[in-house]
Amino acid sequence: MKPEWIAVDWGTSNLRVWAMGPEGVLAEASSDAGMGRLSREGFEPALLDLIGGWLGEGVMPIVACGMVGARQGWVEAPYRAVPCSPVAAGELLLVATRDPRLQVHIVPGLKQMTPADVMRGEEVQIAGALGLLRDFDGVICLPGTHSKWVHVSAGEVVSFQTFMTGEIFALLSGQSVLRHGIGKGWDEAAFDAGLSEALSKPEKLAARLFTLRAEGLLAGLSPEAAGSRLSGLLIGAELAAAKPYWLGQRVVLIGAPKLSAHYARGLAAQGLTAESLDITACTLSGLAIARGVLKKV
Amino acid sequence: MKPEWIAVDWGTSNLRVWAMGPEGVLAEASSDAGMGRLSREGFEPALLDLIGGWLGEGVMPIVACGMVGARQGWVEAPYRAVPCSPVAAGELLLVATRDPRLQVHIVPGLKQMTPADVMRGEEVQIAGALGLLRDFDGVICLPGTHSKWVHVSAGEVVSFQTFMTGEIFALLSGQSVLRHGIGKGWDEAAFDAGLSEALSKPEKLAARLFTLRAEGLLAGLSPEAAGSRLSGLLIGAELAAAKPYWLGQRVVLIGAPKLSAHYARGLAAQGLTAESLDITACTLSGLAIARGVLKKV
Repeated sequence: MKPEWIAVDWGTSNLRVWAMGPEGVLAEASSDAGMGRLSREGFEPALLDLIGGWLGEGVMPIVACGMVGARQGWVEAPYRAVPCSPVAAGELLLVATRDPRLQVHIVPGLKQMTPADVMRGEEVQIAGALGLLRDFDGVICLPGTHSKWVHVSAGEVVSFQTFMTGEIFALLSGQSVLRHGIGKGWDEAAFDAGLSEALSKPEKLAARLFTLRAEGLLAGLSPEAAGSRLSGLLIGAELAAAKPYWLGQRVVLIGAPKLSAHYARGLAAQGLTAESLDITACTLSGLAIARGVLKKV
Repeated sequence: MKPEWIAVDWGTSNLRVWAMGPEGVLAEASSDAGMGRLSREGFEPALLDLIGGWLGEGVMPIVACGMVGARQGWVEAPYRAVPCSPVAAGELLLVATRDPRLQVHIVPGLKQMTPADVMRGEEVQIAGALGLLRDFDGVICLPGTHSKWVHVSAGEVVSFQTFMTGEIFALLSGQSVLRHGIGKGWDEAAFDAGLSEALSKPEKLAARLFTLRAEGLLAGLSPEAAGSRLSGLLIGAELAAAKPYWLGQRVVLIGAPKLSAHYARGLAAQGLTAESLDITACTLSGLAIARGVLKKV
């Protein structure tokens, strides 16, 4: 197996790599060597751990995105300011490596000054989506730990907004007093109830959370229903606050399939049919675009 | 020193005890032997650790409130249902102890079926406040890890609502991505800005949180300002959702002085002047009332 180049998605918690041939993916690997657990000296060895077997004698082009380019990452790749195209020629950052076979470029994230916001990694998925969709104008929603809503027009990211929904769900369901009554499993009716509560009265969210605990104690609310309603409440609150983004727009979701389905269900309850794209396909397509941009330079 | 009785406030994280004489407090002690870290067999030894030196040969009356009466506590003291007086004759639970010198009674918490809600410990502070205020009709707010808003009329708790504001602040400022940009210290202007944002557009709260991180990265938002604005956002969201409680009402705050001052400032921004009571005075006054109720039985 001789890859032409290597695609790298390097987040806070995980490192994923793909050996890319002319027809697409030849092999893939991943580890938990995310940015969050590496010192500056740890990045090159962590990468070599996964791709060492794919290297030959020559120089291997590698394109990486995500938190690897953060201030606490391998090398800081300064944000580009919106409005701008999600990836751009001449803007990738070359990393100095000890191993001469590595030629690593990092795709910089995007920043928005007002209201202040940042992304790292999603810009590549957006570029990939634009490559897959052709002439897309509308809104891309990337649900996740930190969900992003992105307004795209004429090939540029015009504006975006981050919601901490996934992280807040993890903290409330795993570490707050609610954890005693929240379990795995899915209860669609409970999700819908939470969604509807939050969308119809988003200003009441703060008053809804503890009822999950109290209904568990007093009314036998099941752990599945409690977790699903919490998910509905938080996604509903996000959809309520993100309404200026999605109202009357074409919306494309890029995220883990289950989570994207929850967002699609929430939007459907508001009369909007969202499309979905595969997140890995978008990442690889975006990294390939970034590499193409690089080759033109 | 010979106490007449011992007052006990036994929460999830802490145990506080007071030796009570005819004129009030003779001595006090505390430990971190909260309900959360004790097995059922651990309660009696944890109590004896603190009060052993106050015991004589006879039987010592002890009145305890808080999570000690929860299902995971020493003995479960079933909730009383509102509307009801905060503490009531014949409703305290006697605990079986190995040490014959201990006569421990636990004050039960309160429950509300619709919307489902529970409290344990605050009912004693409410009883104490009613004892101190005389003929109070209005709303008591108890800010804390789980803030309570309580509607009181004719000596009874009519309804109440819990907000997880304190716990959410601790999780977001200490464990979420926001922790990187949040520090100690207080910036009143930043608090006011968060408060005003949340009160004027509570449905936008979900969109405000990540801006604290982004402004730290892009605009040099200081850690003090970020923490204070987060506090303002969350207290503002609580005040927005609790508006049916405080609007047009007499409001009394019972809580830690700094936190109560933040709530008072938030209410003042809405044109409402809240009174404040000392939380320990309310606890001790309430436990004394509970003991008096007991003696009448």
